[in-house]
Amino acid sequence: MKDWLDGYDDRDWQTTTDGTVRYALLGLGWWTVDVALPAIENSDLGEVTTFVSSSTEKAERLADDHDVAHGISYDEFHDGAATDAYDAVYVGTPNAYHLAYVESAADHGKAVLCEKPMESTVERAEQMVDVAESTDIPLMIAYRMQTDPAVRRAKELVEDGFVGDPVSVYGNNSQPLLEMIPDHDQWRLDPDLSGYGTSVMDLGIYSLNTTRFILDRDPVTVQSQMSSHHEAFQAVPDERSGALLTLEDGVRMVTTDSQRAHEDTQLKITGTAGQIDLRPAFHGECTMHLSRGDMTATVSHEAFDSQREMREEFDFFSDRVLTDGEIVADGRHGLQDMRIVRAIHEAAESGDVVEL
Amino acid sequence: MKDWLDGYDDRDWQTTTDGTVRYALLGLGWWTVDVALPAIENSDLGEVTTFVSSSTEKAERLADDHDVAHGISYDEFHDGAATDAYDAVYVGTPNAYHLAYVESAADHGKAVLCEKPMESTVERAEQMVDVAESTDIPLMIAYRMQTDPAVRRAKELVEDGFVGDPVSVYGNNSQPLLEMIPDHDQWRLDPDLSGYGTSVMDLGIYSLNTTRFILDRDPVTVQSQMSSHHEAFQAVPDERSGALLTLEDGVRMVTTDSQRAHEDTQLKITGTAGQIDLRPAFHGECTMHLSRGDMTATVSHEAFDSQREMREEFDFFSDRVLTDGEIVADGRHGLQDMRIVRAIHEAAESGDVVEL
Repeated sequence: MKDWLDGYDDRDWQTTTDGTVRYALLGLGWWTVDVALPAIENSDLGEVTTFVSSSTEKAERLADDHDVAHGISYDEFHDGAATDAYDAVYVGTPNAYHLAYVESAADHGKAVLCEKPMESTVERAEQMVDVAESTDIPLMIAYRMQTDPAVRRAKELVEDGFVGDPVSVYGNNSQPLLEMIPDHDQWRLDPDLSGYGTSVMDLGIYSLNTTRFILDRDPVTVQSQMSSHHEAFQAVPDERSGALLTLEDGVRMVTTDSQRAHEDTQLKITGTAGQIDLRPAFHGECTMHLSRGDMTATVSHEAFDSQREMREEFDFFSDRVLTDGEIVADGRHGLQDMRIVRAIHEAAESGDVVEL
Repeated sequence: MKDWLDGYDDRDWQTTTDGTVRYALLGLGWWTVDVALPAIENSDLGEVTTFVSSSTEKAERLADDHDVAHGISYDEFHDGAATDAYDAVYVGTPNAYHLAYVESAADHGKAVLCEKPMESTVERAEQMVDVAESTDIPLMIAYRMQTDPAVRRAKELVEDGFVGDPVSVYGNNSQPLLEMIPDHDQWRLDPDLSGYGTSVMDLGIYSLNTTRFILDRDPVTVQSQMSSHHEAFQAVPDERSGALLTLEDGVRMVTTDSQRAHEDTQLKITGTAGQIDLRPAFHGECTMHLSRGDMTATVSHEAFDSQREMREEFDFFSDRVLTDGEIVADGRHGLQDMRIVRAIHEAAESGDVVEL
């Protein structure tokens, strides 16, 4: 137990401690400025040299405020400005803008860390995979739970047989979006920018991807129900969603997600012999509640807030860029989540079982 | 808060403290003898006068062991033996035997508290309702969660707007049945005795009924997936099941249930403004985890094990029998759960959305 706790946050993925990846950050919303930027500044292998925003003025002003060397506009980014100043691009814009920035980054020969979901539709995600593969740039989709120590330890426990055969999975991710961002015209509620919808694209993807990662099993069938009730959600179908999935080996998975509900995250994996309950699961302070036979244990790591999660993720990506190492959450990995999300929306519309 | 905690286990349903209902207990398995019998012995309004079992010898021996006045066989029960000694019958036999005992109890003019699920099929449950209504006997289905204080307080909190508009519900009930009862030929795995299956009939019914009770909303559509894997489960379709239900007002509900999984019970209701998480939810020690805004509270009542839950249930039923009062969980109430369980099985077989 001593070794296990002491090694809880070991970077079992790390292959180098040498070198620095210089980042350009795109999409300077609160997440990028308040979470991603300090995460990179605190990281071992990354630094931020370039801010990219809607206008040169805004980018330069923010760059000045945060002691970043360059501030350029999106147009200047596409045209190749400041390419000597950065090695990699972090894309944190609305979903439907991801592809264009990845295309330009690929033109410039830069590595890309792209926020999830990777784009607004399966077709555009496929284009992104093609771009990355044809230009041979490193592309990683930013599933930061995959470098959260609780999730990595959960994956090991499952592989070691802690839960026995996995039987069922429950995932929930809900938040009061309109209390967090009161604007009714925000991009997450605009399907032209967000894609198929809002709750599954933006929140459900956490349960789906983290389960795929921990169990190493993908969904094979999907059923779903969704509805919107509040006027701010009239353009998107999934203010509230519920899904029923069967994973490989007959594992039952159920999910609920809502952008207009009390904040709550949980991912619970129940097997024939034990259970791993991550509660809370996402957005920092991921806590493991383990049970097996008559024993229970709760394990938490206070340092892992969202910023620390992002720091791990950036250092993982920097490590892979510096060593040309394997990226598990590559474009094809992210594309599979896009197909699952699309299937959930198709299933809700048809009432049918949609096969993947 | 003082008043609320002090009144947590108040019997808000009680209308009389006078009188005694004399019970005959049918189906003398461990649940009846070890849980129901002491529950009645500790109750205010009940006493056990009669044991009914497969043979006169067994019934008399158990009656002697437990200081109960009469021990009779099932045949003697049907024939009207000892009817002067009891006022009400508790039916704790395998599901498919319930109807015949309720019919005889009705012939004898006795009140009936019948274990859930009320029978093995919807058709037989409908016959039970007809019998009870045509003979005008009090019939209650034994949903003991409805008199658990945590569940009653949860219902009040929902009615008071604690969670805002209900958005989603998650229910799980899983247990390692073969570790609890190693016999592969047990009745819960025999569809002739259990009915449509095992995990939804025996375990899922807790999530379904408790949600109906707390939210005062019924399911309107059902989708489901189920499968059996272990040889002991080859005759039943639902060693593992998952269901996706839409309740009235578009509330999303997801459930998982398994008779061959780590023991776990949870019932979580998430609304626009707060959450009530019963964890554990069933089988004693029901604990409320409340959250609303930035506040959380955990409330537990150590005395409420399964036996105490049963004591509340028997006193509730006795109260209604003594006063001829209203029984919420009557035959029609239980019949609706049978229809929901049948719909879950139909939905799993067809892959369709089944409407209720």
